[in-house]
Amino acid sequence: MIKKTIIINGAPRMVIVNPETSLADVLRKQLNLTGTKVGCGNGQCGACSVIMDGKVIRSCVTKMKRVPDGASVTTIEGLGTPDNLHALQLAWAVHGGAQCGFCSPGFIVSAKGLLDSNINPTREEVRDWFQKHRNACRCTGYKPLVDAVMDAARVLRGEITKEELAYKLPEDNKIWGGNYPRPSAIAKVTGTCDYGADLGLKLPPGTLHLKLVQANVSHANIISIDTSEAEKMPGVYKVVTHKDVKGKNRITGLITFPSNKGDGWDRPILCDEKVYQFGDAIAIVCADTEEQAQAAVEKVKVELEVLPAYMSAKAAMAEDAIEIHPGTPNVYFEQKIVKGEDTKPIMEKAEYVVEGQDLYVGRQPHLPIEPDVGFAYFDEEGRLTIHSKSIGLALHGAMIAPGIGIEPEKLRMVQNPAGGTFGYKFSPTIEALLGVAAMATGKPVYLNFNYYQQITYTGKRSPFFMDIKLGADKDGKLLAMETEWTVDHGPYSEFGDLLTLRGAQFIGAGYNIPNIRGIGRTVCTNHAWGSAFRGYGSPQSFFASETMMDVLAEKMGIDPLELRYRNVYRPGDTTPTGCAPEVYSLPELIDAIRPRYQEALEKAKQESTPEKKRGVGVSIGVYGCGLDGPDGAEAWAELTPEGVTISTCWHDHGQGADMGVLGTAHEALRPMGIKPEEIKLVLNDTALAPDGGPAGGSRSQVLVGNAIKAGCDLLLNAMRKPDGSYRTYDEMVAENIPLKYVGKWSAPCTDCDENGQGNPFPTYMYGVFLAEVEVDINTGKTQVVKMTLAADVGKVGNKLLVDGQIYGGLAQGIGLALTEDFEDLKKHTTMVGCGLPFIKDIPDALDIIYVETPRELGPHGASGVGELPLTSPHAAIINAIYNACGVRITHLPALPEKVLAGLKALKNQ
Amino acid sequence: MIKKTIIINGAPRMVIVNPETSLADVLRKQLNLTGTKVGCGNGQCGACSVIMDGKVIRSCVTKMKRVPDGASVTTIEGLGTPDNLHALQLAWAVHGGAQCGFCSPGFIVSAKGLLDSNINPTREEVRDWFQKHRNACRCTGYKPLVDAVMDAARVLRGEITKEELAYKLPEDNKIWGGNYPRPSAIAKVTGTCDYGADLGLKLPPGTLHLKLVQANVSHANIISIDTSEAEKMPGVYKVVTHKDVKGKNRITGLITFPSNKGDGWDRPILCDEKVYQFGDAIAIVCADTEEQAQAAVEKVKVELEVLPAYMSAKAAMAEDAIEIHPGTPNVYFEQKIVKGEDTKPIMEKAEYVVEGQDLYVGRQPHLPIEPDVGFAYFDEEGRLTIHSKSIGLALHGAMIAPGIGIEPEKLRMVQNPAGGTFGYKFSPTIEALLGVAAMATGKPVYLNFNYYQQITYTGKRSPFFMDIKLGADKDGKLLAMETEWTVDHGPYSEFGDLLTLRGAQFIGAGYNIPNIRGIGRTVCTNHAWGSAFRGYGSPQSFFASETMMDVLAEKMGIDPLELRYRNVYRPGDTTPTGCAPEVYSLPELIDAIRPRYQEALEKAKQESTPEKKRGVGVSIGVYGCGLDGPDGAEAWAELTPEGVTISTCWHDHGQGADMGVLGTAHEALRPMGIKPEEIKLVLNDTALAPDGGPAGGSRSQVLVGNAIKAGCDLLLNAMRKPDGSYRTYDEMVAENIPLKYVGKWSAPCTDCDENGQGNPFPTYMYGVFLAEVEVDINTGKTQVVKMTLAADVGKVGNKLLVDGQIYGGLAQGIGLALTEDFEDLKKHTTMVGCGLPFIKDIPDALDIIYVETPRELGPHGASGVGELPLTSPHAAIINAIYNACGVRITHLPALPEKVLAGLKALKNQ
Repeated sequence: MIKKTIIINGAPRMVIVNPETSLADVLRKQLNLTGTKVGCGNGQCGACSVIMDGKVIRSCVTKMKRVPDGASVTTIEGLGTPDNLHALQLAWAVHGGAQCGFCSPGFIVSAKGLLDSNINPTREEVRDWFQKHRNACRCTGYKPLVDAVMDAARVLRGEITKEELAYKLPEDNKIWGGNYPRPSAIAKVTGTCDYGADLGLKLPPGTLHLKLVQANVSHANIISIDTSEAEKMPGVYKVVTHKDVKGKNRITGLITFPSNKGDGWDRPILCDEKVYQFGDAIAIVCADTEEQAQAAVEKVKVELEVLPAYMSAKAAMAEDAIEIHPGTPNVYFEQKIVKGEDTKPIMEKAEYVVEGQDLYVGRQPHLPIEPDVGFAYFDEEGRLTIHSKSIGLALHGAMIAPGIGIEPEKLRMVQNPAGGTFGYKFSPTIEALLGVAAMATGKPVYLNFNYYQQITYTGKRSPFFMDIKLGADKDGKLLAMETEWTVDHGPYSEFGDLLTLRGAQFIGAGYNIPNIRGIGRTVCTNHAWGSAFRGYGSPQSFFASETMMDVLAEKMGIDPLELRYRNVYRPGDTTPTGCAPEVYSLPELIDAIRPRYQEALEKAKQESTPEKKRGVGVSIGVYGCGLDGPDGAEAWAELTPEGVTISTCWHDHGQGADMGVLGTAHEALRPMGIKPEEIKLVLNDTALAPDGGPAGGSRSQVLVGNAIKAGCDLLLNAMRKPDGSYRTYDEMVAENIPLKYVGKWSAPCTDCDENGQGNPFPTYMYGVFLAEVEVDINTGKTQVVKMTLAADVGKVGNKLLVDGQIYGGLAQGIGLALTEDFEDLKKHTTMVGCGLPFIKDIPDALDIIYVETPRELGPHGASGVGELPLTSPHAAIINAIYNACGVRITHLPALPEKVLAGLKALKNQ
Repeated sequence: MIKKTIIINGAPRMVIVNPETSLADVLRKQLNLTGTKVGCGNGQCGACSVIMDGKVIRSCVTKMKRVPDGASVTTIEGLGTPDNLHALQLAWAVHGGAQCGFCSPGFIVSAKGLLDSNINPTREEVRDWFQKHRNACRCTGYKPLVDAVMDAARVLRGEITKEELAYKLPEDNKIWGGNYPRPSAIAKVTGTCDYGADLGLKLPPGTLHLKLVQANVSHANIISIDTSEAEKMPGVYKVVTHKDVKGKNRITGLITFPSNKGDGWDRPILCDEKVYQFGDAIAIVCADTEEQAQAAVEKVKVELEVLPAYMSAKAAMAEDAIEIHPGTPNVYFEQKIVKGEDTKPIMEKAEYVVEGQDLYVGRQPHLPIEPDVGFAYFDEEGRLTIHSKSIGLALHGAMIAPGIGIEPEKLRMVQNPAGGTFGYKFSPTIEALLGVAAMATGKPVYLNFNYYQQITYTGKRSPFFMDIKLGADKDGKLLAMETEWTVDHGPYSEFGDLLTLRGAQFIGAGYNIPNIRGIGRTVCTNHAWGSAFRGYGSPQSFFASETMMDVLAEKMGIDPLELRYRNVYRPGDTTPTGCAPEVYSLPELIDAIRPRYQEALEKAKQESTPEKKRGVGVSIGVYGCGLDGPDGAEAWAELTPEGVTISTCWHDHGQGADMGVLGTAHEALRPMGIKPEEIKLVLNDTALAPDGGPAGGSRSQVLVGNAIKAGCDLLLNAMRKPDGSYRTYDEMVAENIPLKYVGKWSAPCTDCDENGQGNPFPTYMYGVFLAEVEVDINTGKTQVVKMTLAADVGKVGNKLLVDGQIYGGLAQGIGLALTEDFEDLKKHTTMVGCGLPFIKDIPDALDIIYVETPRELGPHGASGVGELPLTSPHAAIINAIYNACGVRITHLPALPEKVLAGLKALKNQ
């Protein structure tokens, strides 16, 4: 141990530290200054940025032996407080810089370091600074962060005041459609928002720390598990194995399609007979401290019989492949699409036919900055209470309760503030492990993944291998489509059939294709299990149809945007599932983006050089809002002496659930004259809040929003007097009128049938993507120089949120197109290894054109938004690469070596 | 567990808590908001005050189940930060409101609660508020706190600005003699000063928590200690007993006087053969958590053979008493005083003789607000490093090293910021326990006492039973004194002989008494072991001579102040130890206080009523600065690029060691033009700082101050150029002149001999106390309405510090006189039970008259200060009670029942 004195936020503090401990751990775990976050834990993401002696450093890789005695350290807590924000904190809030907010303290501290040395930076200098200091954000696409720094600098230079910068309520008291900062913004920008790992450090004394014994092979039979030595280690309370699990020890996806050949009970909580994938949990060490638990992990002996690992769908489909789940074929589900006439004769007659084979969109990793984390305990009513990043509390409760062996009513699920999920938390991750450990020990338990575990343990986007054939008439009107898609869903089946259905729903979506034949299949493999990811199934699907549309346009010799324009939905057209879209905004969207497109083509021509070729690409994206088929949500509104309380589960990935609830409720309640700050939110705790359903498929604004509106409408009706004015709380009480109203809403939808036909979503989102790229001919590296999205997401409820969703989705699309992958278990295990885009990978030029077609079924006219920007931006980029240099990438990501190989092949032609 | 959301300092925080846990524990141990302190732990002291939903509450007794969900809690961290102080925090700093500072956060938060509701309070309203909210302070006498609130209120009312209130460096750059706030003030008022229990919560992961198995009888033989069951308890790493102690398992006082019948090796670290007093440590449980350690304590089985407990000197001196330490008589030391002629014939001839018998000053408890606490670990060089409240690091290292069994050079001692000691930490308390546990486990270990342990385990002021006889001539000139004093030193001998010598030195001090005969004895008992306490030996001594002077004056029919005036030291006179005082300021002090005295007499006459009688009393106090006999200190001064670094061990009870070092050094270095903020302090760590000696006997300013000055002088000499200007750092380096200079200083003193004769102190402090009291004839309760001290402590180095020492000492004198005791092991185990004075027990009228006689041997003319105000204030009060109502209290404290009994006896006369 070493004793040092460090000046922390202006106050000298004596610390006793292990010289090898990181400054971040000392700040967080010893001093409990949890405003400083730890994301990657190895200096890649900058979430842990602090200023030491005037320099911005990453505290997670700064060992205490390198912190000089007497050093001055500034953390986010030293900038400003909720009552007295620093200009950067205020600017971050008003620009929507904090979405999940996990990176915000690091960014803000880093930005302070910049402004301390340069109070008048250009946007490019801000971007250079964040690139240099490796500040990574996965939510915002970075643009709002640069906006925030520029405005904070103006405040610091005295050009505007903080008051001028701050949000001001308009005179009509309307926040819907405006820029009201989300309620959680202040906590996020001041470092006072406690995420799971922050709450974990603040749990009661006696909380056990959990560490997992995990598989280090991808497929094996378990011969034996010996915990005896581990249980003797200091501080170890218990080592939990499958034998301690009181229930079925399986997680279920709840609904398994009737034709699924599996029964859906294939995912173990703790491996008993087999290891199905690398990282599978085999045992949980429960100890007094994290270090003790980790030390004991090394002492658990697991004897394995290693089996062949099937690391792709093709490998698992090989004739000699054994069944990964004995008794269930590796290809366990098939989904047809049958729309209109038989396509074979049509293709034979079609003027133009194009065909794509083996198109591949891979195992995109979610890469939230915050690794997975949670804790569990028994609450005051004896309920097993599990806190996690779950974005589907009721769903997850039902998925894990039989497995851990608890009555559903004795299980309480709570969402902690989540530092980004992007869908991976649509599946349970550590919830069941926490539940099992809490039940086996009777103690509060806490489990925090490191980033390696985050990447290797949690689900990924499931790769699609796709064949596609399009037939069109002489004018380019699509006549027929044939498709075949193979989904590598990893070892666990939950939602795998649903995902496969997405191929039927979204390959070719956006266009009226009267005749479709296709088949998709779900394949069990030993690579990462498939979980939801923004756009769920659509980035794969659109990659097939949207690159093929460009091929078709080229074949026809017409402009690819024009080809799309001729085919997009118009009244009378139907979607691939055979239903009518709720609005027909795609022509208007194309009209809106066309001038930008033409300008971009012109610019690309002018700015192309032989070394750096510019190109332009477009794509169409469509996604449905809802769970797919029947769907509903519930919320309540209660009048209180202070205002109105709204309660529901609108889970927060970081997208802004709190603002969604507040904005929707406020607009509904506005007739009574309520101010936004008089609306209290009780969210995301199954013991307190009704079920709004999981936050996936961009359903929350539509489904939960409608439920909230319904509850508010009921309350307003009850409050309304004959003269049209509203009763006060006291009047309601005096007249004995109930104060609390439950709002429910169900989507008028139907499941898709075996042919993929149905009306599965109440509303959709529509977009047209325009990508402008530059390809370096010498390196093969592609730089996206601008992205534009013309979007119809219905009425925009909160511009900060919707902009933020789109910027962030576009950034993830750039990653998907160019760099992101999780394939190699050695290489793809860090943020950088997985290809996370940093600020200079994302253009500052991210433009949005809104076409706000009000949705009849959307509350206040809104549709969803989150999935849209990641439906097909990558297709536009891939098309732009082709446009730039003639290389057609079919297997994502478009790494420089692939582009170089394509260029070489072109040369050799 | 319950989940709640609490708005803490404006930020909503989700907490998971045990409903029975206190809010203080949640704030401190879960949220690590250690600005909120826990003193008594049972709602008596207000150190834990926070504001909840607008009300000031004591968080240590507020269970979480009583904290409403959604409650707003304001802690000291929510008021202001070091860079942006709240007006109260600033006012606290500039008024010296934070001495030890442990109560400051609670007081400041409490005061905020007051000012939130009443922005213009009167002084009495402030006092009423603090009384009502039970905010206890042991350092300041409360007056500076009221001053601070009044000034903060002025700021908040806009009458003055914070800038106007703040300290301003004078134009001559001289801080010596001024009101410069101590360097640690900002940390103390903002809650960022980490005391032992705060640091303990911030120790590295893996630190073991210690709990003691303690004796619950006062005297016993140990038959067996069985730790087997305890060692099997969860989280228990080891249970340490005497068998695990590698050394002699004894603490030694180092120097045992030659005629002491014991060998000084009588205090066990962990009891092996016997229990000597209630609370003795028998075993140490080392576990991962505090709760686990406490649970295991209950499982340690100790079999005892209970022996008769000797709870007073008289009991231990009984003929049939067995030897507490077999082989050593219970009366183990005697100290004579022989000055001048044989007193017997003089007494026979003297005009006036008065005699007092069995005068008693009891086991005054120190009652720091912070209970004892510390931790230990092995540092980067493998040194066993012990952090504690020690105010004698090198001394304690030497006292415990053989006992724990470590080479002195492998032992490093560090002082944590201490929340008050008042002398109890002149003895080792838990240091050896920490060392033993760290050595037995190899791990960092942490031990925090609760307040019950603080009171029952740590040393106390040792009671004196005194007989005294004074003989005077017809003019009241003292001719002779005879004394006999018996010291109940508890079971451990360390410094017991030294303390007994104090009776020879200070009974009758202040007066020229040419002939003295007396004998003191040190008695081993089973009551609390004797440790140092402010004034060490003098409050006992002066109680004998100063009450007897009043008896003499009455007998003579002259004014008691006049009698004193006739006898105080004048040139040619000698002290009881036969040496000449260094200055003769007592006549001047009496002259200075006389008008106040006469005014007080007049006022008492006017304000007395038959029910409430007023009285006035005076007393003289004298104390020496130094260890008693030869004494020395060391310090170094080093020129750095930033300024000058000063290093020494000037230990801090709370008196302001940092300011003492800074003020002394700055005044010495002022010729080079250095600013105070350019002086860096490296203090109180034996690995870094040279030995300044323990902080006791008001020696630090004189001894350590001289060493600092010597070091600074050497540095200045080296820096001085021929033209009288000073070299810069760069010039010194260029000329190859050494930068670091060690200053040493030794006091030109001699030990007292077997007759108590010698010249033991380089300087003294002199004071005249004036007490004004009101005695309620119906209840016997005495209220001190005013205290005045005319003091000569040499040149006042820092007025905030010196005022603060005097106010605090006077308050402790009031406690000693009227309420404080530690006698009953059941009743006297809480702050209130021990009679701690609250604000309304201390008059707002505390006046000081300084006579600043420069000391030749004091640095910059200063003497010490800390002991003076507690030499004899109680004697003045007791004299005032007599003056008010004719009752002479001889056995402290003067509880109402004693006064009532005296009144009853008077009536019956």
